[in-house]
Amino acid sequence: MSTRSNARWLLTRRPQGLPTADDFTFETVEEGPPADGEVLVEMRYISLDPAMRGWMNDVPSYVPPVKLGAVMRAYGVGQVVASTVDGFAEGDWVTAPSGLQAIFRTSRARDLRKIDPEQCPVTWHLGVAGMTGLTAYFGLFDLGQPKEGETLLVSGAAGAVGSAVGQLGKIAGCRVVGIAGGPDKCRYLTDTLGFDAAIDYKADGVKRALAAACPDGVDVYFDNVGGPLLEAALWLMNDHGRLPLCGAISQYNATRPEPGPRNLALAIARRLKLQGFIVMDYAQRYGEAVPKLARWAMEGRLQTRETIVPGLDAFPDAFARLFSGDKLGKLMLKL
Amino acid sequence: MSTRSNARWLLTRRPQGLPTADDFTFETVEEGPPADGEVLVEMRYISLDPAMRGWMNDVPSYVPPVKLGAVMRAYGVGQVVASTVDGFAEGDWVTAPSGLQAIFRTSRARDLRKIDPEQCPVTWHLGVAGMTGLTAYFGLFDLGQPKEGETLLVSGAAGAVGSAVGQLGKIAGCRVVGIAGGPDKCRYLTDTLGFDAAIDYKADGVKRALAAACPDGVDVYFDNVGGPLLEAALWLMNDHGRLPLCGAISQYNATRPEPGPRNLALAIARRLKLQGFIVMDYAQRYGEAVPKLARWAMEGRLQTRETIVPGLDAFPDAFARLFSGDKLGKLMLKL
Repeated sequence: MSTRSNARWLLTRRPQGLPTADDFTFETVEEGPPADGEVLVEMRYISLDPAMRGWMNDVPSYVPPVKLGAVMRAYGVGQVVASTVDGFAEGDWVTAPSGLQAIFRTSRARDLRKIDPEQCPVTWHLGVAGMTGLTAYFGLFDLGQPKEGETLLVSGAAGAVGSAVGQLGKIAGCRVVGIAGGPDKCRYLTDTLGFDAAIDYKADGVKRALAAACPDGVDVYFDNVGGPLLEAALWLMNDHGRLPLCGAISQYNATRPEPGPRNLALAIARRLKLQGFIVMDYAQRYGEAVPKLARWAMEGRLQTRETIVPGLDAFPDAFARLFSGDKLGKLMLKL
Repeated sequence: MSTRSNARWLLTRRPQGLPTADDFTFETVEEGPPADGEVLVEMRYISLDPAMRGWMNDVPSYVPPVKLGAVMRAYGVGQVVASTVDGFAEGDWVTAPSGLQAIFRTSRARDLRKIDPEQCPVTWHLGVAGMTGLTAYFGLFDLGQPKEGETLLVSGAAGAVGSAVGQLGKIAGCRVVGIAGGPDKCRYLTDTLGFDAAIDYKADGVKRALAAACPDGVDVYFDNVGGPLLEAALWLMNDHGRLPLCGAISQYNATRPEPGPRNLALAIARRLKLQGFIVMDYAQRYGEAVPKLARWAMEGRLQTRETIVPGLDAFPDAFARLFSGDKLGKLMLKL
């Protein structure tokens, strides 16, 4: 076989607000066999993450913006279909910074991480035993420093990272309160995942409900959303509280910056620590966390939900579900 | 002598916005001799600090609010005039949580700290070798973690804490940029205190001027003011930057909360750490810092200015100068 068809999404316009199909171009190209030192991976699942929205902006950040005309950046799992690199053989499962495409060709085999499809479902390597779980693990344990008996509040709690954070908080012995959108998600948090309480941010009286759910205040607020909920959480923080800042999904599609928390000065009198982080900074320590996460997941102490959308062509409609809230847990495309 | 006249300021109304004389009552009472276990201190200087504004509000904080009808809380230096406590004799110089009054009577001699009037001017114990210097020292070194060659930006830089922070930054080998109000203060920072640059926040084009003064970005932003300058500083922060939050003087007299920084989400991608602190949390470590601060001050490496206003009755007009900016360095009353 000399060539393979490769369907792929290019970023061809900088989105204003929520990305639409018009910001991307879907095309099919032919891929030849791997050159010397190259590996070809056929992608099976591609993760859709809020961080991708930031990469679409022409703003320097912790990674460069995706160039116009380039394949949209994304991570996935797939199987090697052809390789000229020792250690990578046809059929091997790997995680890969593949971009949104069916075939990933790379001369940087070091970017591929081999995974064992028998250890756990391969999709978990995009979620609870992958970036998602690692983000929750390092943000909560390294920055949040939860202690037994403390109160952990987490926003975006029904999301992939948030649901892992809350369950890790239970493992650490905390009272765990989640914030999510809608009664179904809230029930999922308390009835399925074992959160102590869940607050529907779309309902009335959110501030009062939060205060009632956190009678001893909040020691750790794991922030996935920014915006008004960060302000509401600040009011509840106990002295010496920790606020790992993981995401600000409420702001990602804002076309003009929204006001920040009006009560940030509380951080002084209450000696709060707000700290942003990027999971990649912990790459040297992934090996410490992955076995624990996989074990907890296999034991059912770290449950995970997946929303799997069929077809590469389903992006960008599927991507929009990250922001509308119309999904549960880890969102990914199945190719 | 059986009694002494004690002039004092009571807080008799909660201020709205900037405090005025109508929020306080000035009265004179007679103080008898010390009872058993009591010390009487005649105050010589009383420090006026931005933190006092917070203590006037009926809001729980790191110390309880000042009660209506009580002597307004303040710190000062004075001399013992009568004592029934071993270790405190007439003539001894002490620092004391005296409140705004001429005579401080206390049964808690442990709250008095004896000072040596030969070591340095006694007023320095309210400033560069007292709370002010300690605030700068622990906020900068413990939370800011400045490294040689890094850029330190400090707001309120001509104030008591800010000017100490900048000079400590120079001792640490940083490029130091100060933000202050007006050309005179800016010249004082660069010409007298050795700052590398100073930005007048009252002038036009502050954001551009800040960027030009910090060509390598900002590694540590020591925030004394909050508000729009915090937002401006966030834009300039380098990855892994540290922001000790020491004060928010721009907000203290706000009658309604002002919007916070619209760009706080930058903290995520840039892995910033914003951390509030209160110098009293470091009380166990004062002994480590005071000798260094006193030595640097005596060597002239830590210069200090004082604005000394004569007369206890000059409060609250003198207090207002903290917020109008009409003072340089440490503000205090001389009794």
